Amino acid sequence: MTEERMLELLETREYKELKAELENFHPVDIAQLLEEFSEKQRVLVFRLLSKEEAAETFTYMSSEMQEALVSKLTDAEIEEVVEEMYLDDVVDVLEEMPANLVERLLLSTDEETRLQINTLLQYPNDSAGSIMNVEYIALRKEMTVADAILKIRQVGINRETIYTCYVTEKKKLIGVVDVKDLLTTGENRLIEEIMETNMIYVHTHDDQEEVVSVINKYGLIAVPVVDYEMCMVGIVTVDDAMDVLQEETTEDMSMMAGISPNEDSYFEASIWQHAKSRFPWLLFLMLSATITGLLLGHYEDALAVMPILNTFVPMLTGTGGNCGSQSSTLIIRGLAVDEIEFNDIFKAIFKEIRVALVVGFMLALVNGVRIIIMYHDPLLALALGITLMCTVMLAKTIGCMLPLIAKKCGLDPAIMAAPLITTLVDTGTIFVYFSIVTRIFHL
Amino acid sequence: MTEERMLELLETREYKELKAELENFHPVDIAQLLEEFSEKQRVLVFRLLSKEEAAETFTYMSSEMQEALVSKLTDAEIEEVVEEMYLDDVVDVLEEMPANLVERLLLSTDEETRLQINTLLQYPNDSAGSIMNVEYIALRKEMTVADAILKIRQVGINRETIYTCYVTEKKKLIGVVDVKDLLTTGENRLIEEIMETNMIYVHTHDDQEEVVSVINKYGLIAVPVVDYEMCMVGIVTVDDAMDVLQEETTEDMSMMAGISPNEDSYFEASIWQHAKSRFPWLLFLMLSATITGLLLGHYEDALAVMPILNTFVPMLTGTGGNCGSQSSTLIIRGLAVDEIEFNDIFKAIFKEIRVALVVGFMLALVNGVRIIIMYHDPLLALALGITLMCTVMLAKTIGCMLPLIAKKCGLDPAIMAAPLITTLVDTGTIFVYFSIVTRIFHL
Repeated sequence: MTEERMLELLETREYKELKAELENFHPVDIAQLLEEFSEKQRVLVFRLLSKEEAAETFTYMSSEMQEALVSKLTDAEIEEVVEEMYLDDVVDVLEEMPANLVERLLLSTDEETRLQINTLLQYPNDSAGSIMNVEYIALRKEMTVADAILKIRQVGINRETIYTCYVTEKKKLIGVVDVKDLLTTGENRLIEEIMETNMIYVHTHDDQEEVVSVINKYGLIAVPVVDYEMCMVGIVTVDDAMDVLQEETTEDMSMMAGISPNEDSYFEASIWQHAKSRFPWLLFLMLSATITGLLLGHYEDALAVMPILNTFVPMLTGTGGNCGSQSSTLIIRGLAVDEIEFNDIFKAIFKEIRVALVVGFMLALVNGVRIIIMYHDPLLALALGITLMCTVMLAKTIGCMLPLIAKKCGLDPAIMAAPLITTLVDTGTIFVYFSIVTRIFHL
Repeated sequence: MTEERMLELLETREYKELKAELENFHPVDIAQLLEEFSEKQRVLVFRLLSKEEAAETFTYMSSEMQEALVSKLTDAEIEEVVEEMYLDDVVDVLEEMPANLVERLLLSTDEETRLQINTLLQYPNDSAGSIMNVEYIALRKEMTVADAILKIRQVGINRETIYTCYVTEKKKLIGVVDVKDLLTTGENRLIEEIMETNMIYVHTHDDQEEVVSVINKYGLIAVPVVDYEMCMVGIVTVDDAMDVLQEETTEDMSMMAGISPNEDSYFEASIWQHAKSRFPWLLFLMLSATITGLLLGHYEDALAVMPILNTFVPMLTGTGGNCGSQSSTLIIRGLAVDEIEFNDIFKAIFKEIRVALVVGFMLALVNGVRIIIMYHDPLLALALGITLMCTVMLAKTIGCMLPLIAKKCGLDPAIMAAPLITTLVDTGTIFVYFSIVTRIFHL
C-alpha cells in the first residue's frame, strides 16, 4: 500500500479496509508514512492501529511527531500506548519532550514503572545505564531447564529479548544462559550446570561507546549491565547498540568537519541550530588562518622580488593540508575501532615518516617536471621539491601525533581532524617554504 | 590470566594448568593474546584448545596469523577446525588465503560443504550472498509448535542463529517465526497459524550496505536472503551486519580524506600500500591547486600595488574550505543514514544558503572589527566582508550540491568531501576576492 492509497482510503472514509491494510505493515514503515500526513490524518490513522502496533509505531516516530500526537490523544489512549512500550523506549521519548507532556506521560504509568523510569532518567547521558532496558529474564541456579523454559513462557511475552537469560542470586549476576542452550540440552539438567560463569558484562556508568564495542567484539545479542556491587540492573540489546554506533559515527564525522555535534537530523535542525554548531569552529579557524596570513605578509619583500613564488602557495598549503588530514583520519578511525592505541605513537610516527618520504618524493618529481616544462628553471624545481618533501613530512607527523595526544589527554581525537590540522600545517608550510627559497635564491 | 602468566605456564610446560585456564577465556580474547606470541607458542597454545574453542579462536584471528597457523597444522587438525566453523566464516578465511592453502582447506571438507563454499565464493564482493550464512532453521507450515521445538533441538546445535526460523515450501520462503513466539504460545498450534507472512528479506545480489540498513531499520537479529525466485538461500546475522557497518564507515571516512579504501588495518598495510592509496588523490589535488596558483599569479599587478591583499588569502581560502567541508560532510552522512535523498536537493541548497547568510555575516563582522582595529581601513573591512559573505555562500552551495549530484550519478558521495571541495572552493574564492577588491580599490 502506498501513501496515495492510504490517503484515498482516508478520504473515502473506508476505515475498515484501511485498518486491515495497516495490519500488513511494519510499524517502522507506518511511522515513516505518517511523516507525510497532516496532524489530523495522523491521529485518525494512529487510532486505527492495534494496541501493540500503535505502541511500536509511536516508538519509531520522530520526537516532533510524538509530541504533536501526545497532545492530541486522550489520557486513556496515552496510558495504553505507554503500557505497551519497552521501558527504555519510554525513557528515550521522555528525554526529548517538554516538561508538561513528560508529566502527562508519567501520570499514565503505574507507580512501579514510574520509579523505574526515574531511576533510568538519572543515569548520565550516553552511559550504559541511560540506554539499557530493565526488563529481562532472570533465572535461579537451582532451576531445571524445564523450569526455565516455563518461566520464559510465562513472562517472556513482555520482554524485549528473551534469548539470553541471566542467572542471579540475591540480585547479583552469577551466570548467563542462552535460550539456544536451553533448547538443545536435557530438560532435567540444572541451570547451574549449563550456565556460563565467565560472563561478559558492562557497568551502569560505562560509556555507551564501550558498550557497543563489547557487543560488537563478542558478537552478542544483548549484554548485561551491572552496578558496582555486581547486581544485575538491566540489559543493552544489539539493536540499540547499532543505533548508538550510527549516532557516534555521525558525531565523529561532524567533529572531524569542525561541526559541534547536534542531536537533530539535518532537516530537523533549524537554521540557528546549524549556525550555532558551525560558527565557533569557523571563527576559531578564521582567526588562526590570520596568523598564516601575517606570516605571509612578513615575506612581502621576497615576494616583491620574485612574485612567481606566490603562485605556488595554494599548491603547497593544499598538499600539506591533504597529507595531514589523510594521516589524522587514519589514526582517528584506528583509535575508534580499537586498532591503534596511544602506546603505538612511535610506531605510527615512524610509519608516517616512511610513507611521507615515498609520497613526498613522487609529488616533488611530478611537480619538478611541470616547473621545468613551464618555467625552464631547475633551481626553482629543486627549491619546490625540497619544500614539498618537508611539507609532506611535517603534515604527516602532525596529522598522526595530534589525535593520539588528544586521546591520551582524554579529549575526543576527532577534533584533531582536517580543519585544525590544515590550519596548523598551513602556517608550518609557509614558514618552511620561505625559509628554503630565501636561502636558495638569496632573497 | 594475563599474557605474562600464560607465557610462564608455557615455559614451565604446565600444559594441563594452561589448558584449564584457557577454558575460562573467550575465544576473541585468546585470539588477541596469541597475536603477541611467537609462531611456535601459538601452535602449542592452539593445540591445547577444545575443538569448538579452537574453531572459534581461529575465526577471530587476523588473516596473517591464520595463514601462518594453517601451514603448521596437520591435515587432520585442519579438518577438525574447519568442521566446527560456520560456513560464512570459512568463506571469509578462504577469501584472504593464498591459493595453495585454499586448496588444502577445501580438501579437508566433505563434498557437500565444498559445493556450498564454492557457491558462496561466486557471489559478487560486498553482496548479501557474499556475507550470508547458509545454515539456518527451516520449518514447514504443517508442523506444530512442539514439532518445531523438537526440530530446533535436533539441528539447532550447529546453527549460528536459531532465534528466527524460516518457513519454506518447495524451497520458497513463505513465513517467519520467532523462537520467542514458539516459546510463548500453545504447543499444539500450527506453524501456519503463528507465522508472520509479511516478511522482511533481501536478495542475494543486494549490496551489503542495503542489508545492514534493513537489519538496522527493523531491529532484526537476522534477515533472510532469497534468490530471484523467492527461494530461501541463507541468512545474514546482526553481528555480521555490525562488522559490515564498521567496515563501510571506515571506507567512507577514508574516501572523505582522499584515501582509496584499503582492506588491511593501519599497521597491517605496508608502506607501499599506504603510499599507493594516498598518492593518486594527492597528485590530482596538487595539480588542481596549481590552477588556483596560476589564477593568483594573474593578479600579480594588483598585489604589487596593494601587497597587504595577499595576507588575507589564507584566511579566505581556509574559511571557504572549512565551510564547504562542513556542508558536504553533513550531506554525505545524511545520505549514508537515509535521512537525505537526491530529491531534497533544492530544500538542502535553500537551507545552506540561509545558514551561509547567518554564518557569513557573523564572520564578516568579527573580521571587519579586527581589520579596523589593526589597519584603520573601513573600506578594506567592507571589501573583505563582502568577499567573506560570497565565499561562505559559494562554499556551502558547492559543498551541499556535489555529494547529492554524485549520488544521483551513481558515484559514492564520499568522494565529494573536504579535499575536492576545498580545492574547488579555493579557486572560486580567489576569483571572487580579486574581482571584488580590484573594483573597490580600482586596481
